[in-house]
Amino acid sequence: MREPVHQAQRKVWRNGALSDGARLIPEETALALTYNGGTYAVMMGTPEDLGDFAVGFSLSEGVVQSAEEIETLDIVELDDGIELRMWLKSEKAERLAERRRHIAGPTGCGLCGIDSIAEAVRPAAIVPAGRAFTPREIMAAVATVPPLQEINHQTRAVHAAAFWTKTGGIVALREDVGRHNALDKLAGALARDKVATSEGMVLLTSRVSVEMVQKTAAIGAPLLVAVSAPTALAVKMADAAGITLAAIARSDGFEIFTHPERVAGALAGKEPAYVVVA
Amino acid sequence: MREPVHQAQRKVWRNGALSDGARLIPEETALALTYNGGTYAVMMGTPEDLGDFAVGFSLSEGVVQSAEEIETLDIVELDDGIELRMWLKSEKAERLAERRRHIAGPTGCGLCGIDSIAEAVRPAAIVPAGRAFTPREIMAAVATVPPLQEINHQTRAVHAAAFWTKTGGIVALREDVGRHNALDKLAGALARDKVATSEGMVLLTSRVSVEMVQKTAAIGAPLLVAVSAPTALAVKMADAAGITLAAIARSDGFEIFTHPERVAGALAGKEPAYVVVA
Repeated sequence: MREPVHQAQRKVWRNGALSDGARLIPEETALALTYNGGTYAVMMGTPEDLGDFAVGFSLSEGVVQSAEEIETLDIVELDDGIELRMWLKSEKAERLAERRRHIAGPTGCGLCGIDSIAEAVRPAAIVPAGRAFTPREIMAAVATVPPLQEINHQTRAVHAAAFWTKTGGIVALREDVGRHNALDKLAGALARDKVATSEGMVLLTSRVSVEMVQKTAAIGAPLLVAVSAPTALAVKMADAAGITLAAIARSDGFEIFTHPERVAGALAGKEPAYVVVA
Repeated sequence: MREPVHQAQRKVWRNGALSDGARLIPEETALALTYNGGTYAVMMGTPEDLGDFAVGFSLSEGVVQSAEEIETLDIVELDDGIELRMWLKSEKAERLAERRRHIAGPTGCGLCGIDSIAEAVRPAAIVPAGRAFTPREIMAAVATVPPLQEINHQTRAVHAAAFWTKTGGIVALREDVGRHNALDKLAGALARDKVATSEGMVLLTSRVSVEMVQKTAAIGAPLLVAVSAPTALAVKMADAAGITLAAIARSDGFEIFTHPERVAGALAGKEPAYVVVA
């Protein structure tokens, strides 16, 4: 199996001096997702946690509604990439074939099989009310992510998506060179472990584009917290999906773009003026 | 026409205090690329420089070999997005229809119409030898990018791709919420202005995944300089394409992962120990 981190020899021009040496960089591999013998998509990603990725991608794309609908999953090394070979129960396979016939129509391909703008910006699922979160909980959760980013410690070049619960802290964290893939891997890990997603928050080290909100809604998490900024369309989608979107989350605080009512205490001003991070 | 920057109202929890206010965030719009009446792809991007995007995407994807092969280009506002409506000369349209029939085969969709791993990691075009660059030129070029990132000044959340030449400095810079789109926009701008791409360098504010190298090869630029790190597959592709890949480019220097022979002076140790940035 491929390693997620690769050692590259390179020359360094730094402070006017030339030197030679090695740097750890992330691997990037073509990952083909196939269902019942047909290719659905090829994504470029980090060859790690691929079972989680296959399950999470299938859920995010709506190919399946639960992990159990995937009857078998094999990870097959090929010359130029890795095939994530899935077989679905027959009724699922029929529905997928119908969808594929739709995709394969005369109007062409589109974004991962979505051949129209309307499908690309389809409304996200509306998430359950879930629990409320205090600013202290949010900031503590944000602070616990970096120590767990193992591939990023080595390469400083991969994103992470994590899930936090009150009782378990960070219960899952997945990394990938692509932020979308990292979130799909997290979705797969949560589904396989049957985590109660309405009770926790999704944490992202990246920016928030609309697809990150759509994936969070598919997970069913009420709160999405990101280190960087959201796009306007992501804000609109989070509002419609009932997701609380907090972003620009740093050690001194965060900004709430949608559904602030879920951040208990912040609205009522009940939090102390300092935050203790464990 | 949609504006690329949007003002969002949000609540701020910072240093233990709650406040209200506005933040500028980037717009994100579904962009449908259509040829002769058929949708080829829907990409999420910044609604700015869309003519450049349409031309650059068409070149990067190999739909056309020159900007002139696009007979007409209309930018059409729709309810949920923008259509970039292109008509190609008839022989081009026939070839595209053949490709689309191939894509629309029984094995499904894939990444933007690439329905197999082999196509996803297809070898990039081999770039011309072009000119050599000194470390001083590279560092001066890197330093001139940030002042020109107008959308990023407002939002701190969009990427830029720029092109530098010895005689003109930064001759084009394009921004987008997606780094792939920013580079496609740059490719389109260079093609429309007939810039001699073998004489300059592509500059990216982002990481370098394999697709960024494939696009740089399609542009025909001999040198790619990025602020962040490359993936291992990007390094392999740059090596095969004859591209000099410099990354982790900061104010104090950069690292050269492939074809260092094009960085004159660095190898011979001829550069001064200090670099004057205009």
